[in-house]
Amino acid sequence: MYAERLSRTRSRMDELGVDLLLLSVGADLPWLSGYRAMPLERLTMLVVPVEGDATMVVPRLEAPRVVERPEVFHLRSWNETDDPVALVAELAGAPRAVAVGDRTWARFVVELQARLPGARWTAASAVTGALRAVKDPAEVDALRRASAAADRVAAQLQAGDVPVIGRTEAQVSADLGRRLLAEGHAAVNFAIVAAGANAASPHHDPGPRVIGPGEIVLCDFGGTMPDGYCSDITRCVHTGEPPSELCDLYLVLEAAQAAAVDAAVVGTPCEDVDAVARRIITEGGYGEHFIHRTGHGIGLEEHEDPYVVGGNREPLAPGHAFSVEPGIYLDGRFGARIEDIVVATATGPDALNRVPHGLAVVEA
Amino acid sequence: MYAERLSRTRSRMDELGVDLLLLSVGADLPWLSGYRAMPLERLTMLVVPVEGDATMVVPRLEAPRVVERPEVFHLRSWNETDDPVALVAELAGAPRAVAVGDRTWARFVVELQARLPGARWTAASAVTGALRAVKDPAEVDALRRASAAADRVAAQLQAGDVPVIGRTEAQVSADLGRRLLAEGHAAVNFAIVAAGANAASPHHDPGPRVIGPGEIVLCDFGGTMPDGYCSDITRCVHTGEPPSELCDLYLVLEAAQAAAVDAAVVGTPCEDVDAVARRIITEGGYGEHFIHRTGHGIGLEEHEDPYVVGGNREPLAPGHAFSVEPGIYLDGRFGARIEDIVVATATGPDALNRVPHGLAVVEA
Repeated sequence: MYAERLSRTRSRMDELGVDLLLLSVGADLPWLSGYRAMPLERLTMLVVPVEGDATMVVPRLEAPRVVERPEVFHLRSWNETDDPVALVAELAGAPRAVAVGDRTWARFVVELQARLPGARWTAASAVTGALRAVKDPAEVDALRRASAAADRVAAQLQAGDVPVIGRTEAQVSADLGRRLLAEGHAAVNFAIVAAGANAASPHHDPGPRVIGPGEIVLCDFGGTMPDGYCSDITRCVHTGEPPSELCDLYLVLEAAQAAAVDAAVVGTPCEDVDAVARRIITEGGYGEHFIHRTGHGIGLEEHEDPYVVGGNREPLAPGHAFSVEPGIYLDGRFGARIEDIVVATATGPDALNRVPHGLAVVEA
Repeated sequence: MYAERLSRTRSRMDELGVDLLLLSVGADLPWLSGYRAMPLERLTMLVVPVEGDATMVVPRLEAPRVVERPEVFHLRSWNETDDPVALVAELAGAPRAVAVGDRTWARFVVELQARLPGARWTAASAVTGALRAVKDPAEVDALRRASAAADRVAAQLQAGDVPVIGRTEAQVSADLGRRLLAEGHAAVNFAIVAAGANAASPHHDPGPRVIGPGEIVLCDFGGTMPDGYCSDITRCVHTGEPPSELCDLYLVLEAAQAAAVDAAVVGTPCEDVDAVARRIITEGGYGEHFIHRTGHGIGLEEHEDPYVVGGNREPLAPGHAFSVEPGIYLDGRFGARIEDIVVATATGPDALNRVPHGLAVVEA
């Protein structure tokens, strides 16, 4: 699998005139090598020339973690007082065009640039993004398992099994995180809990605000499974019966989300899926309150290609996996968002999240 | 506080001939502004010219999270279809020398470089590293609270309250993580659990290996407190009575660790602290098995300046906070490490971790 991915990566490097790929922290590295670098100041870097052997440069104390795959890379460890940047530069030779992993730390980029003068630098996603965006069947299964685990937590929330009233947003967030772990995730990436007016802030940081009766509670949570694949789901609940104005808004949002999922047909440009959600929300009178894109790709990263956003004319392909998550935010009052992970398939959009989308009422 | 930090940062920029500082993900940003950027593909960047106003560029949907501090920065939010890199470039003007946050994603660095041709680029730690390394009394208190929280978990481990025998390394790791959260951490950064021969791999990834009787279990764990400051501690336990060879090794390690802590006196070069631990371990016959540096600074980041490593001639100053964590690793057999966080003070080294250093025996 990794050898085949390396081969496709090199074809793409060749097409783009990139003669060196340098991968460090981020998901390109595990996708290509099976190894995830520790996000530390000790450099780990996979050095991939367009032709010839690839080399994984790792700190000596992390070398035992690496499963060497001779068909993909050889291992080269460095000691604490060695200079790993010099080692990478030596392996790099004199490249003309370098693609560097998108999340590689800037400090290594600027040091490498000083050692490899005259090279043109681009982000590695130019090489890997379109390749990684198309999930193979095993990857779709992994995403399905991740979504099912998140669904189990969402179902507990909707059933009222996650106490909400009288607890702080931060407490509910921690509870959702624990439940993600209990349902099989290896790590929690985020658990946004935003109550009442805080729900009008799409990336609200859950805080000490105590949740009371008569409030919407927006919960957007996800994590990474042991195999590296991510979940991401948003559901809203209401403490007690919601007011009719919120019900009206929520019906518009539900219709927009469902229509955008249905529009995610192979061949449709990503921006058209965004436009479907945006049109329905605009027709419902809330256009100016939908202040973000409709979605993002998901896989080994929580956000990756393809992005479901105005301006992205990339047509959906079988195996594209992405979120569909429109939202409506009324500043100072309340907000709502509904999110599923969807896979584009030859037989139509496949929504991996299956829990109901409605505004569940939870009591104390 | 932030205004004063900004003033010192600008003095340092001036000294180094840096006319623009660009900060994104990583700890420089919260240290200087009180705001921590979300590690996502939507760019957050604080643009700090050496003179004139600083501007925080944030995605519109994250703007409500930011507490604006007019004495430090103004806020400038961007919409989903705007180009944040163009916005930063516009605010940047035509800098000659740019310092960019060490952990800023490479994709933004290469895009910004294309927009700011002719500038010289360096890592922001050249500007901020020495400033952030010196903790003020409130920061030392924050580190003390973080260490005390980690100590409580370590004490539970040593008392046998964390079941070890019959569980997998991964299960014990998850348990330690839950306990870090229960003791007040907001996030778990790592919880290495390495049993038997796995303890010879300093950064072992806890896995499905079941821990049995008669094994050393190396536990290195830490997290981030709600105020952003980090903990980091390593203790080893043994399931049942340890063999005499391991006891001998452990006594050497304990002596080396204690001597290195005692050597961490203001004015001593960092590398001399490393040399003290290394000399004792070498004299004990294990020199080639101590394969990493003695320590790293700690604060808003789990690893930061100053590094306690050969080659770092920086003298310790009051307020320097760092780990002292020698280890001995016998390939294929076992390993051990002992780690405390230490603050250099005018009255001598202050070890923040207070739980015993010995090899505690835990039973089933």
